[in-house]
Amino acid sequence: MLRTSLQAGLAGAFLALSSATALADPLVAAAGLAPAAIADEGMWLFNNPPTEQLRERYGFDITDEWLEHVRKSAVRVSTGGSGSIVSASGLVMTNHHVASDILERLSTAENDLLANGFHAETMDAELPCPDVHLDVLWSIEDVTERVDGPAAGLDAAAAGAARRKAMTEIEDAAKKETGLHAEVVTLYQGGRYHLYLYKRFDDIRMVFAPEKGIAFFGGDNDNFEYPRYCLDVTFLRIYEDGKPYVPEHFLSWSEAGAADGELTFVTGHPGSTQRLNTVAHLEYLRDVAVPGALHRLMRQEVLLNIFSGTSEEHRRVAEGDLFGIQNTRKVYLGRTAGLLDPAVFEAKRDEEDRLREEVEKNAEWEEKWGSAWDEVAAAQRAARSMSLRYNVAGGPGLGLGAQLGGYAVTIARLADELPKASTDRLREYGDASLPRLYQGLYSPAPIYPDFEMMRLESALSLMAETLGAEDPMVVAALAGKSPRARAAECILGTTLMDIEARKALVEGGASAVEAANDPLIGLAQALDPFSRELRKRYEDEVQSVERAAYAKIAAARFAVFGEGVYPDATFTLRLSYGAVKGYQDGDREIPPFTEFAGLYEKAEERAGESWYTLPESWSSREDSVVPTTKFNLVSTHDIIGGNSGSPMVNRKGEVVGLIFDGNIQSLIGNYAYSDEVARSVSVDSRGIMGALEQVYDAKRIVAELKGQAAGK
Amino acid sequence: MLRTSLQAGLAGAFLALSSATALADPLVAAAGLAPAAIADEGMWLFNNPPTEQLRERYGFDITDEWLEHVRKSAVRVSTGGSGSIVSASGLVMTNHHVASDILERLSTAENDLLANGFHAETMDAELPCPDVHLDVLWSIEDVTERVDGPAAGLDAAAAGAARRKAMTEIEDAAKKETGLHAEVVTLYQGGRYHLYLYKRFDDIRMVFAPEKGIAFFGGDNDNFEYPRYCLDVTFLRIYEDGKPYVPEHFLSWSEAGAADGELTFVTGHPGSTQRLNTVAHLEYLRDVAVPGALHRLMRQEVLLNIFSGTSEEHRRVAEGDLFGIQNTRKVYLGRTAGLLDPAVFEAKRDEEDRLREEVEKNAEWEEKWGSAWDEVAAAQRAARSMSLRYNVAGGPGLGLGAQLGGYAVTIARLADELPKASTDRLREYGDASLPRLYQGLYSPAPIYPDFEMMRLESALSLMAETLGAEDPMVVAALAGKSPRARAAECILGTTLMDIEARKALVEGGASAVEAANDPLIGLAQALDPFSRELRKRYEDEVQSVERAAYAKIAAARFAVFGEGVYPDATFTLRLSYGAVKGYQDGDREIPPFTEFAGLYEKAEERAGESWYTLPESWSSREDSVVPTTKFNLVSTHDIIGGNSGSPMVNRKGEVVGLIFDGNIQSLIGNYAYSDEVARSVSVDSRGIMGALEQVYDAKRIVAELKGQAAGK
Repeated sequence: MLRTSLQAGLAGAFLALSSATALADPLVAAAGLAPAAIADEGMWLFNNPPTEQLRERYGFDITDEWLEHVRKSAVRVSTGGSGSIVSASGLVMTNHHVASDILERLSTAENDLLANGFHAETMDAELPCPDVHLDVLWSIEDVTERVDGPAAGLDAAAAGAARRKAMTEIEDAAKKETGLHAEVVTLYQGGRYHLYLYKRFDDIRMVFAPEKGIAFFGGDNDNFEYPRYCLDVTFLRIYEDGKPYVPEHFLSWSEAGAADGELTFVTGHPGSTQRLNTVAHLEYLRDVAVPGALHRLMRQEVLLNIFSGTSEEHRRVAEGDLFGIQNTRKVYLGRTAGLLDPAVFEAKRDEEDRLREEVEKNAEWEEKWGSAWDEVAAAQRAARSMSLRYNVAGGPGLGLGAQLGGYAVTIARLADELPKASTDRLREYGDASLPRLYQGLYSPAPIYPDFEMMRLESALSLMAETLGAEDPMVVAALAGKSPRARAAECILGTTLMDIEARKALVEGGASAVEAANDPLIGLAQALDPFSRELRKRYEDEVQSVERAAYAKIAAARFAVFGEGVYPDATFTLRLSYGAVKGYQDGDREIPPFTEFAGLYEKAEERAGESWYTLPESWSSREDSVVPTTKFNLVSTHDIIGGNSGSPMVNRKGEVVGLIFDGNIQSLIGNYAYSDEVARSVSVDSRGIMGALEQVYDAKRIVAELKGQAAGK
Repeated sequence: MLRTSLQAGLAGAFLALSSATALADPLVAAAGLAPAAIADEGMWLFNNPPTEQLRERYGFDITDEWLEHVRKSAVRVSTGGSGSIVSASGLVMTNHHVASDILERLSTAENDLLANGFHAETMDAELPCPDVHLDVLWSIEDVTERVDGPAAGLDAAAAGAARRKAMTEIEDAAKKETGLHAEVVTLYQGGRYHLYLYKRFDDIRMVFAPEKGIAFFGGDNDNFEYPRYCLDVTFLRIYEDGKPYVPEHFLSWSEAGAADGELTFVTGHPGSTQRLNTVAHLEYLRDVAVPGALHRLMRQEVLLNIFSGTSEEHRRVAEGDLFGIQNTRKVYLGRTAGLLDPAVFEAKRDEEDRLREEVEKNAEWEEKWGSAWDEVAAAQRAARSMSLRYNVAGGPGLGLGAQLGGYAVTIARLADELPKASTDRLREYGDASLPRLYQGLYSPAPIYPDFEMMRLESALSLMAETLGAEDPMVVAALAGKSPRARAAECILGTTLMDIEARKALVEGGASAVEAANDPLIGLAQALDPFSRELRKRYEDEVQSVERAAYAKIAAARFAVFGEGVYPDATFTLRLSYGAVKGYQDGDREIPPFTEFAGLYEKAEERAGESWYTLPESWSSREDSVVPTTKFNLVSTHDIIGGNSGSPMVNRKGEVVGLIFDGNIQSLIGNYAYSDEVARSVSVDSRGIMGALEQVYDAKRIVAELKGQAAGK
């Protein structure tokens, strides 16, 4: 599944990494630094679209109106995926696995919405989703000069601080002026800064979700595989002022779907790629960051499995986390395999040598940019010296392994940060970020003490296992107790389970926090100085150095190759184009489409295995569904984790599919695009409509998608 | 389950570690270095039994005849556990989980003996077990002077080499003289060396095993928990010259079982404890060795889970390994929790301080032994500098993650080692060790190429993830390929699947090996120099230094406390004593016995969960079994991993139970004994007999156990 690392709960700079499979690919050598993108490559900016490529390859003239229409129909989902508005009444389509955290939170011990699905037969039955918001990209402005200006002439660390301050100022001013959510996006690793303004919606309700058994048919086993048979869809609805939102733009539904070979587009929010990384940077990822992340993922997977085995309630509580961890672990195994493939490195080395040669030929360029690659290498050495410690301390956010731990850190830091000017605070405590921060902090989502205790113990134990029990940070964390005893003390003794208690502490500020003497906040406070020091070192010695050096490399690339290149993914809206197309897997010819009939065949073939057990809604209708209904499809679009839930549209901007995965060969996409065997995987629009009509009898949604009526 | 690390495929000095839970225990402070063992503590040597303690605590006079009878009725199982001879026709009782590797090897795609169980209704139907041998301890001799003599006056590394050479010479001579299998055992960390001679039996056949569903009822979930309901038993038979073995000694069966509070004995082979380790040594285990082992275990668990999910055949093939890994992982989680409990370290520090003070008071002692603790600390610093590398290189044996890889290493090393004199070879290639080595190498056990490929890829990838892709050892291992490609090349290209090919290479020696140009042997040869160098450094800078220093500490302990102390466990025969006794778990009073009725209650309570699903043999007899039949029991015996399958006998030497586990509180046993809540868990002799009579209708075995007839 194309979840971003955000979704799996893995925030932090060291975890926004890279991906590839072990399959050597002849195209790798040609990709990446080539002056013009090959084939259907590219995650393009909406203000720098691949106009020429579309005209040349497909004879399609992309217009500003077309771009605005699909842009304003696209949404970014706060749980870490993409989606689209698909009706005149604010109906939103995304993936089931993007919405799975929401479904888990809406579940109770009596009704597990992940297992059973959900179908609001009337509008009144639509369920409010706590803590979820959707963003629609309203405008883009280049603010590179405003960000870089204050940094001119400063050393790397001071320049980094100056840029971070300028970004916060720009965001705060824009939010004040427009009321829109503002984010300055760093593009081309610091080559450009764009101000993105979003219309933010936070009254979101659950409309329809199928059972996990069909949404995730084949489970972790078939994840990143093809052919597939998954109904990985969920419908939400945007409300405004308590009523269904009436959008200016939404995507119409294509009942005909796309044909084999047809040009289509994907609009979504790819999370992160590392295609422009230097070789030294990739070596750091290969030898330190990715193995470290893989270790932590596998550890979490085992501990979640143990916890899940202890009771049915524990299984349900941990299911979403386990699902996310297994998905990310599969991605990281792919990345490890790719990074350990010498062919990938050879290609990257060749590309880097070519660019550096061009720079060296020009004395002015060499003077301005020639040192950049060594500077990136120095930043990687710095990262090697601190990454273990930074990661077990939870990265920039000081993770305490659990929901309550996150609240404790936020409350402790708010008490310290709010008295400062917005631009002097830690970036995520700036005025523009506060509404979302409060939304998370005052979430009514259920909290499970057993689960919290297990996760906090795990985080504390990992810290000790990694740094040694006598490391000062570990000593501060454990306070003379074992991880288990310390976790029990903190979780059983905290008042943060209660939303009102959290509000009172935030509103009361530092003195209220001090008076409360909450053990979990005490733990956060004990670790805070270590975390802040590590973060500062990481920002100064790694991020700022990288930022400055990559800005030089980006400038070199613009000079050598021109402006017609796309930046690495940044979890912001991008446009990909490509064709519906099968592929060759060894001896096997894989056709582009699957059908309902194939689902039933597979279920029979793997009978008895839980991942292949159909929900009753599907098994009982085996004889009545139309077996030739197109179900899933593959295409050549350039996508990555975060694109989950992206709509696939045709030239007319109509929905023909819903991205939900890539095949295993596409995991190389973090480093380089290939269209030989790497494929995006979507649910066909005909499969979605077929399921709603033939299996779920969801007349209200069907009518709404067909534009016959606004949902009632 | 009390499997040794041997069983989980985790050989290597860094993995023979220590264990404890997070539960602080007031008794910890008193245990360990106390002059006389407290309560029922001790894994006693048969030539230094706890005669006084038994007389004082239980009024029992232990005799040489009694000791010889139970010693010669005990067997050590080559798969890494214990067992006992229980009939006049060589019937052997052990645990199902000790025999699970054997059952897996005897299984086919058509008949999964683990799932279905096995019952030979006649003697002809008893199945030969490849690669298994049983050892009976025939004699013990103190050879301390012969081992230490050649080391006198040498520095630590040279002394270590001299001792290893002396041990090989003693073993070779004893084997030559007696025909018995000879092992020099290092006791008291080098304080004493004893020569153990074993009668070895290698025609072993499978007689009876219940279904895994009842043997391991509750699965990984209930492992190390109590109350329990497991029929963790398997019966094997020793054959000699093609006929059932007629033993001089065997244990009679007690149909009455043991009463609450009754004195009983356990004879078995505890694998390894670290109760005499210095604080510096425990710190190394806590901060480096145990976390490293836990990381590797969790990684293997995840990869085996993935492999198992891909097909039913893969699930079956990997089941035994997965089972072993999960068990060991549970032990290591317990060890981690225990090592991170500051109370455990405080108690150890106090103990160490007390002994050192006694030594310091005596100038002669201080002169001879006073430096020992600093020497152990120096060895730990050396271990820290090389442990990561040594471990991913597979420890002393150069692990290549798979069965075929092991064959390749053995063949490559045999070609190098056999031309040398026995005493100049690597220890495990000495003449005395060769029969067992050949037995393993020419095993007819099935080999699964998919599984081999996965495990070799995993081992190669782990090496690269740990050391970095450009480390010389990694470069030599990968030979310019990705781990996946290299594993495929080696496994698809090797001839070692074929027993005759393995024999031909061994018999042909170095020239045959060179001519074969086998890619897997090539991999072993490429890594061999790195492995040998690491091993030599580890032996010289860690093992030899530790050995010399611990010998001093042992001498100090004998001087201060006298000879009446037991050594740490060494996977050799020991005697433990104790009482059948329940315990208090928080608020709950846990009675010592469970009954058949409780099994059915638990199965109903956890209905639908696979670990709690009874096999048909049991579910269909719910109404006919005697519900009050005693099933499992707990007792205060001091045991540890390796004791699995140990018989529990009464004063008359009759079987009253079969050890199969400890409770979670007993995992602290690696560092210290406690009888407050730590308990051994056994199958009651009445539960075994009840199952054979009431469920399995196993008349032949029942008659044999009751001494009514030799099995026919």
